[in-house]
Amino acid sequence: MLKLFNATPSGNCYKVRLILAHLGVPYDTVEIDVTSSEPRPPELLAHNPLGKVPVLIFDDGRGMAESNSILWHFGRGTPYLPDDEDDRTEVLRWLFFEQNIHESTIAVNRFLISYLDRADHFADVIAFNHRRGVGALDTMERHLSEHEFFVGGCYSIADIAFYAYTHVADEGGFELGSRPAIQCWLDRVRAQPGHVTMSGDAP
Amino acid sequence: MLKLFNATPSGNCYKVRLILAHLGVPYDTVEIDVTSSEPRPPELLAHNPLGKVPVLIFDDGRGMAESNSILWHFGRGTPYLPDDEDDRTEVLRWLFFEQNIHESTIAVNRFLISYLDRADHFADVIAFNHRRGVGALDTMERHLSEHEFFVGGCYSIADIAFYAYTHVADEGGFELGSRPAIQCWLDRVRAQPGHVTMSGDAP
Repeated sequence: MLKLFNATPSGNCYKVRLILAHLGVPYDTVEIDVTSSEPRPPELLAHNPLGKVPVLIFDDGRGMAESNSILWHFGRGTPYLPDDEDDRTEVLRWLFFEQNIHESTIAVNRFLISYLDRADHFADVIAFNHRRGVGALDTMERHLSEHEFFVGGCYSIADIAFYAYTHVADEGGFELGSRPAIQCWLDRVRAQPGHVTMSGDAP
Repeated sequence: MLKLFNATPSGNCYKVRLILAHLGVPYDTVEIDVTSSEPRPPELLAHNPLGKVPVLIFDDGRGMAESNSILWHFGRGTPYLPDDEDDRTEVLRWLFFEQNIHESTIAVNRFLISYLDRADHFADVIAFNHRRGVGALDTMERHLSEHEFFVGGCYSIADIAFYAYTHVADEGGFELGSRPAIQCWLDRVRAQPGHVTMSGDAP
């Protein structure tokens, strides 16, 4: 049985839970409190010295870190990752964009504001991230106003990656009200067979 | 002929120049001043609405954004990207890590300190990024103290991606003096056939 070092409110962990739900792959979870400074379990640290989640442990003891590479691993050979190499490069383009300017701004602000409750202390950091995160959302809105999904007209791991923190962007102080293309795309993602919510319920 | 929208001091652009140098692929460049607020060329904006570089334009007019997906594109079928799927997933793990916590902290601080010359104005942001960037360098040091290169014992696009901003990390206020494994790895990267420096010279 797969073992997932998991934090339920983490969008990065949610990506893994979502692809496994789509594929019907069972797994156990070990819940980590990411707001706690307590030492992380040694098995988690062995695979990610920074103690970040998700980390997935396979039957043979191998571990896998980084949410988007876990998506890639499980996506291969399924409808969630195209076979065409140009399409795959385009999937990667969006996955890198997500990690570089979307997750590092929207997820970080969400954590500082809604989980650490340190908005005042980190006001300058939040303002800096906010400008960059708005750029990420603007880029998504422009792309989704012309495309049903991120790559090749089909729901893929690129959509899963973006959905994770976009659907809770309000918890990081980001407004989606003026972004109709993103809102319609969120609905299309929620309508995919096997979708589960961040808390694990059927939609 | 390939056309690269380039900024010579940008590590992300350097990644592209480095893989193309290794492969002996010729290209033209259009230099962009990333410290300028002047409008970016429409052809660049068409492929990256945020106006970020690198963007690579192919003969047929197609464009490709995101440095690490460009590395992936050119790495396929060469010694710079392993064929084994597990090794590839491991390459991706490091490429995502690089974009998420290495580039977004070390490159951003380098830009604020050494290119915008706004260290005082962005002091809180720089301090926040510094803590995260140190964690990224600690992770690299630990891995490289046990491995000659990032994946599979061979120089790959994962090494190219990390080299770009690590070798100039001092410009972002990061010290490598206490990290011998990183320093030896930097030397190994510089010794690769076809290596060029950031300014374009042979080493």
